[in-house]
Amino acid sequence: MAGQTNRQVVLKNRPTGMIDGSTTEVVESTVPELEDGQALVAVRYLSIDATIRTWMDDAPGYLPPIGIGEVIRSGGSGEVIESKSDRYQVGDIVSGLTGWQEYAIADEGMGSMSKMPEGIDVAGAMNVLGSTGVTAWVGMHEIGHVKPGDVVVVSGAAGATGSTAGQVAKAAGAAKVIGIAGGPEKCAFVVDVLGFDEAIDYKNESVGRRLHELCPDGVDLYYDNVGGEILDKVLANLAMNGRIVLCGAISGYNAGDNVYGLKNYFNLIIRRGTMQGFIVLDHFAQWTEIQAKLAELMAEDKLTHVEHIVEGVEHAPDALNLLFTGGNTGKVLVKVS
Amino acid sequence: MAGQTNRQVVLKNRPTGMIDGSTTEVVESTVPELEDGQALVAVRYLSIDATIRTWMDDAPGYLPPIGIGEVIRSGGSGEVIESKSDRYQVGDIVSGLTGWQEYAIADEGMGSMSKMPEGIDVAGAMNVLGSTGVTAWVGMHEIGHVKPGDVVVVSGAAGATGSTAGQVAKAAGAAKVIGIAGGPEKCAFVVDVLGFDEAIDYKNESVGRRLHELCPDGVDLYYDNVGGEILDKVLANLAMNGRIVLCGAISGYNAGDNVYGLKNYFNLIIRRGTMQGFIVLDHFAQWTEIQAKLAELMAEDKLTHVEHIVEGVEHAPDALNLLFTGGNTGKVLVKVS
Repeated sequence: MAGQTNRQVVLKNRPTGMIDGSTTEVVESTVPELEDGQALVAVRYLSIDATIRTWMDDAPGYLPPIGIGEVIRSGGSGEVIESKSDRYQVGDIVSGLTGWQEYAIADEGMGSMSKMPEGIDVAGAMNVLGSTGVTAWVGMHEIGHVKPGDVVVVSGAAGATGSTAGQVAKAAGAAKVIGIAGGPEKCAFVVDVLGFDEAIDYKNESVGRRLHELCPDGVDLYYDNVGGEILDKVLANLAMNGRIVLCGAISGYNAGDNVYGLKNYFNLIIRRGTMQGFIVLDHFAQWTEIQAKLAELMAEDKLTHVEHIVEGVEHAPDALNLLFTGGNTGKVLVKVS
Repeated sequence: MAGQTNRQVVLKNRPTGMIDGSTTEVVESTVPELEDGQALVAVRYLSIDATIRTWMDDAPGYLPPIGIGEVIRSGGSGEVIESKSDRYQVGDIVSGLTGWQEYAIADEGMGSMSKMPEGIDVAGAMNVLGSTGVTAWVGMHEIGHVKPGDVVVVSGAAGATGSTAGQVAKAAGAAKVIGIAGGPEKCAFVVDVLGFDEAIDYKNESVGRRLHELCPDGVDLYYDNVGGEILDKVLANLAMNGRIVLCGAISGYNAGDNVYGLKNYFNLIIRRGTMQGFIVLDHFAQWTEIQAKLAELMAEDKLTHVEHIVEGVEHAPDALNLLFTGGNTGKVLVKVS
């Protein structure tokens, strides 16, 4: 397959806010000869995650910034179509950091990929058993210590992580799970499809007042995907010994210097609260164990999952922007081939 | 002693910012006959703590607001001069919530007071073995989990809690203890008298730049007494797995709606940080044990303590304002008689 054309989306200019037509460009390269220990993967799906936007900034993060001219770093999955490695067999479905491109190389070192079970619903697995699902589990259980009876609030509730996080809390025995999402359709989705107890439409309702109504004794556990003003409202409605899990702060990713400043952090003292951030990569050792627990919930029909699929690698930048405009319901995937 | 005049400072008007001449007034009442189980205490010292200011607001806190016309709630100590309780003997030196007044009643219920050891340096004990010292210990050990090798930063470092907190960290084996204080005199006090490794003068230096210079690998543990912009600068300089202990947010107590908004909380995700608030009263069960540990540090000469003494119960309001204007070095006490 060496010599095959590989369409790739690369970083052209660092964005200052939302990414646009000047941020990335599609280039064509040629698939190189495989070296020993490598396999060639025909990419099928890309996992579109908000964190990709942070990697485009020239700022220290948990992974180095993407270099100008480099393929956009991204999770993905695909089929092994050629192999010079004992680890990968032709026909294997694998997942890993494929990047935004049609063909990716899997190796036996840092660039290794994991084999997915045969016959699996690949898109569903990339949603629930991928980093999105594991992130939801780690945040709820390992960081947030969700327990029976908790009043739990999840922002970005119609999104990939949020939708799983709320269901994980429900399965753990939370007394009430409230999702915050934008617009009546998403709120209906959160309650009717995902089975959350309540939803707050932040675009049309006062989040502070609704939290006060729905959580008269305060919020025990808040799983935050958005940061900013919504986080501040939850801080104002924190229960005693309340926990806030910071998974993302999507409202700030494109904000530049105009980041919303949190004013109600003083409530962390009054209510003896804890606010803790995490990165799922730190929990790599538990990955398989957590995937098994999520698979169990799926098997028990406790984990509804919805994928929002965008066709074509060249549309990956638009797919990423959906996360920031709120244009998606469920996990955004790009179907490459 | 019944019938004796008791000068009391009571709440006249709720303050909106700093307290002033209209906030409190001095009234004279008459010491009532003791009931069975009560003792009369001639108050010697008042413990002036920033939290008193929060009790003047009509807002839910960890204790109810002080009512209009009520004596200002405050820790204090004094001598038992009359007793109808087996628990208190005339001549005992006791400490508890005396309030801002010349005579207080100790009882055997919610208004009970603890006996201080005979011959103790009362002012020093009110500083280091009182709620100030216990607060410093709880924040450093129970909440902040200080450990050998930590780079520790303490704000309000020349104040009562901060000065003890930094020394507690040093005694626990912290690699570097940096105090943040206002002005060159306080900074010299923090380093030369208290033995901190470094001091940052927030009035004359860039806190962000100095933190960056002094903590090239970031701040492992920040003990925060001030909140606001300084807290935000530390968030920007947090080490991986950094911990922030919120003890107070003095910069916000008088701020009304103009509270500084934290912008760098996103670093709690990137650096896997934790920010946790606490109230020392929750740790009441450990009080005696912690006092013993602090007394041990005092005996080993590892706990320098300085008291800033203001004379006269009528000057208690001015003494409280010293905490907000930064006019004090060390623990502020009012000497009543």
